[in-house]
Formats: sequence, structure tokens, C-alpha cells
Amino acid sequence: MSTTTTTTTTPRNTYGLGYEASQVQHHEWRTAENSTAYLLPHLRRAVEQNPGLRVLDVGAGSGTISASLAAYLPEGELVATDISEAILERARAHAAARGVRNVTFRAADAYALPFADASFDVVHAHQVLCHLSAPVDALREMLRVTRPGGLVAVRESDMRMWCFWPETPALERFHRLAVDVMLANGGQDKGGRQLVSWVLDAGVKRDDVEASFGTWCYSTPEDRRAWGEAMIGRLKEGRMRSKALETGLATEEEIEEMVKAWEEWIRTDSATLGIMNGEVVVKKA
Amino acid sequence: MSTTTTTTTTPRNTYGLGYEASQVQHHEWRTAENSTAYLLPHLRRAVEQNPGLRVLDVGAGSGTISASLAAYLPEGELVATDISEAILERARAHAAARGVRNVTFRAADAYALPFADASFDVVHAHQVLCHLSAPVDALREMLRVTRPGGLVAVRESDMRMWCFWPETPALERFHRLAVDVMLANGGQDKGGRQLVSWVLDAGVKRDDVEASFGTWCYSTPEDRRAWGEAMIGRLKEGRMRSKALETGLATEEEIEEMVKAWEEWIRTDSATLGIMNGEVVVKKA
Repeated sequence: MSTTTTTTTTPRNTYGLGYEASQVQHHEWRTAENSTAYLLPHLRRAVEQNPGLRVLDVGAGSGTISASLAAYLPEGELVATDISEAILERARAHAAARGVRNVTFRAADAYALPFADASFDVVHAHQVLCHLSAPVDALREMLRVTRPGGLVAVRESDMRMWCFWPETPALERFHRLAVDVMLANGGQDKGGRQLVSWVLDAGVKRDDVEASFGTWCYSTPEDRRAWGEAMIGRLKEGRMRSKALETGLATEEEIEEMVKAWEEWIRTDSATLGIMNGEVVVKKA
Repeated sequence: MSTTTTTTTTPRNTYGLGYEASQVQHHEWRTAENSTAYLLPHLRRAVEQNPGLRVLDVGAGSGTISASLAAYLPEGELVATDISEAILERARAHAAARGVRNVTFRAADAYALPFADASFDVVHAHQVLCHLSAPVDALREMLRVTRPGGLVAVRESDMRMWCFWPETPALERFHRLAVDVMLANGGQDKGGRQLVSWVLDAGVKRDDVEASFGTWCYSTPEDRRAWGEAMIGRLKEGRMRSKALETGLATEEEIEEMVKAWEEWIRTDSATLGIMNGEVVVKKA
């Protein structure tokens, strides 16, 4: 492999959901503990063997996972990238506020990472490939910058795998809209279940892949509010709303119904939302 | 509460999938570790406080989870029940073969447990309520035999929350058939997402409920074979096949196509199946 990226004929897009307050708030609920539990045992073992571990977090957004992952590397360092310099400013402020000193942030395209071959021990991405039209190209690039014997760890939603309770027509309509907007932006609606297939397509052998599924559960009053208000925010402003209206995927009236349905769901004590994510840990040969 | 069960007008059924070899083989893949991870931290804490903990496992089937749960109670005891005396013979043999001495097995109806009020510290059921037409009645009965301050822990599949890769029409057809047979047997297809709602209906307060979702991932060659062969077994003999043919839910030709699709899936290195389960741990008031 070389430091130039593989030529591809697949059209490449970028992250399509934007960085509005509602989107960022929703992302900032995420931590290493609630979103990378599948990786932590591997990371602890790697740190035991090499306390000065170098970790890359690709597509880190506002960096709450990056900052909490860095705590597992007291003598190591974490580099976090995102396509947006603006969101990285927020990530830097978050890390500084938490007193995290072993993280640096750098704007970069996931398809063309500005790092030499084999320059990291662990390369991680969370909910990044699902936004890309050419996820296998990004995986090849993640593998390129990983040292032989190092790990690539990826966790991606499977947008079909959401379950609501209570199920109301407006919430089901919202779910279809979220899938449709993801597809209209060039992203993937079934990424979670395809991760093994993608890493094999990127040249990895099956024996070097450990696959699992992980979940998010929004059910306590606090979690219902965090999730529900983020969805209401997306419906009231920002790129999900504008994409839905522009493309005719939903009308203003339908969007208003969805807002009411989320408000009702937040108030409902028996309400639950389950989301399933695919996870792979790949040992680079 | 009293030792007599609550009167109900909901018609009550029983477990509908039978105990054929393919079904039992599939169930015996299950252990405390791969199927009750959500409960284990609670169980460890309870054992620290009371080494002589008494645990009830309702609807234990062939008892592989019961036997592995008992290992967490070196000074405690576990009682396991099932509606079928025949499957309990197999469970006794499994426990004896593993040298597990602190488990006893007793035939019992989940709707009318033959135990006094408040006679267990922890009451557990795994994939039991989803087979019942009156799951809330069974939950009330589990709560009745739990001591105040004790725990009720339940994990139930949500049959809509399966994802396959590769997705083939015959596998999708199989999934619909599995859901349809569950419903035809009087069971529940969306139990996982309804657990919080069910326990609230059984009289529990929201603050006493901890909800989560857990998954099974079948992706390695061994796990693909274990799952796929169990599904092929169900299609070739036993109650799923007879129910499907009797009720016209599938034809012999369609079943043959599904068998071929599972055989192909077992052989496919990128194949994955993800299943999401609902989980609740309830503290009895």
C-alpha cells in the first residue's frame, strides 16, 4: 500500500447532516463508555502491551468520544480528525474543558487521511462510514494508516434497526424520513449489518475480524428528553428539515405531526427507543 | 398480594415451538454469559450482600442458562422451572454432566408458580414472555414470588429486530414466516420493545426499572453453522414446519427455498445475522 489513496469510480460524498445545535447536542451524548464498549477490552490489552499507544479517531465530530477514549491512554496519544474545521473548534474546547491533554485535532478527509502508512496502533471510527457513499474506500484508508498487528475498530448504525414503543404512525413516518434523508445524502441505511462484508471487500481476511452488535436504549426520562429534543430540533431547523422539504420527502404538515409525536413520546413513561449498531474489530495483517 | 394468581380475561396459551432436536440445539447455544450479561453485574452485587442467594429461573427449557447462572451462586441455590417435564429431564442431565449441584428443576406453569409469595431474591426469565399471550400476568406472578427489595430480570426477543446480510428474498420470507408462526401460536412479535410497558402494567414504578437492549451476533463460521442448521432443522421437521403448512403460512416449495437460502448463508463468509433483545431489571418495591 502507498500513501496515495486507491482510485475509485464510486462517487464520493461527505457528511450530510450538518452541525446545527440539535445535531451536535445529540452527538455529545456519546462517550467511549456508551458507544465503544466493544473496543475497550481490546484497547486495555493494547495499552498494557504498549503504554505509549497512538490512536486515530476518524470523523470525530465534536469529539466527546475522542476525549473520553483518551482517558484510556494516560501515556499515549490520540489524534482526532473531522472534515469540518468548525466542529473541531468545538471538540478542542470540549477536550480543554475536561483537562484532556493527550488529544490533538486535525481537519482531514476520511478518504485521504494526511498520515503516513502504518502510523497508528489503533484506528477508530464511530458513525462515519454510514454517511459515506464509498465506505470501503474509507476503510482501506483506515487500514493503510494502521501498523501491521494494529487494530481498526468501526461502529456503524443500521438505520433499519430502530424500534419504538409506543409505535405511532407519526413516529414510523419519522423513521422512514430519517432513512430517506440518509439515502438522499448518499449515505447507507444498512451499514451495521454490512460491516463484515465491507471489511472483507477492503482486503481483510475473515479470521482477522471480530464482529458484534451493540445497542443504544433511550428509556429513562432524561434519555427520552435528550433523544426526543434532538429529533425535534432536527425537524424544526437544519439540514434534515431542509433536505426533507427540498426533495419532497415530507411536507411542513407532516413534519409538524412528527414534532408533536416526539413531544408525546418524551412524556410517556413506558416509551422506549432501541437502536442497533454493527461493530467490527479488525486485526491488520 | 396472595399466593393465588390474578384473575384475567386474556386467553392464555403456552410455549408453541416444541422441543425437537433442532429447537433444543438452538437453545443450548445459550449461556449466562451470552444471554444474561445485563443481569450479571446485579447478580454479583446481590451475592456479595447475601452469599446464600435464592434464584428462580422461569421457563428454563433445557437449562443451559440455569446451569451457568448457578456458577455465580457458589453458596446459593437456583430453582428452574419449565412447563415441560420432558425438557427438564434433559436440563437435569445437562446440570449433572457439568457437575452443577445447586440447581433443582421443577415442572411449573409460569402463570401459576408453585412457590410462596416473596420466596426468591432474584427471579429471571429468558425468552419466555414472548411466547405467552398474557405476558403481564406472568410478570405479576414473577413479582409475587420475589421478596421486596429483590430483583426480577427479563430478556425477550423483538422478532421484528432481526437483520440479515446478505439479504435474500428467501431469508426475508423466512423471517416473515418466523414472525407469523410466533403470532399464530399466540406469542409476541414485539416483546423486546414493550418490556418497560409490560412491567409498568404489572404495577412496577418507572424509577424501579432499568431497561437496556442486548444482541446476538451470528457471524463466525461456527456461529453461522449453529444458527443456520437450527433454522434448517425447524424447516425440515417439528412444530414450526407443521404450523406453517397447516395454516397455509408457507408451501412446501417455499420451505425448500428457505432451506437452500440458509445453506447458502452458512457458506457465505461475509454473512451476518443480528438479533436485538429487550432487557429489564426491576427492583421489587
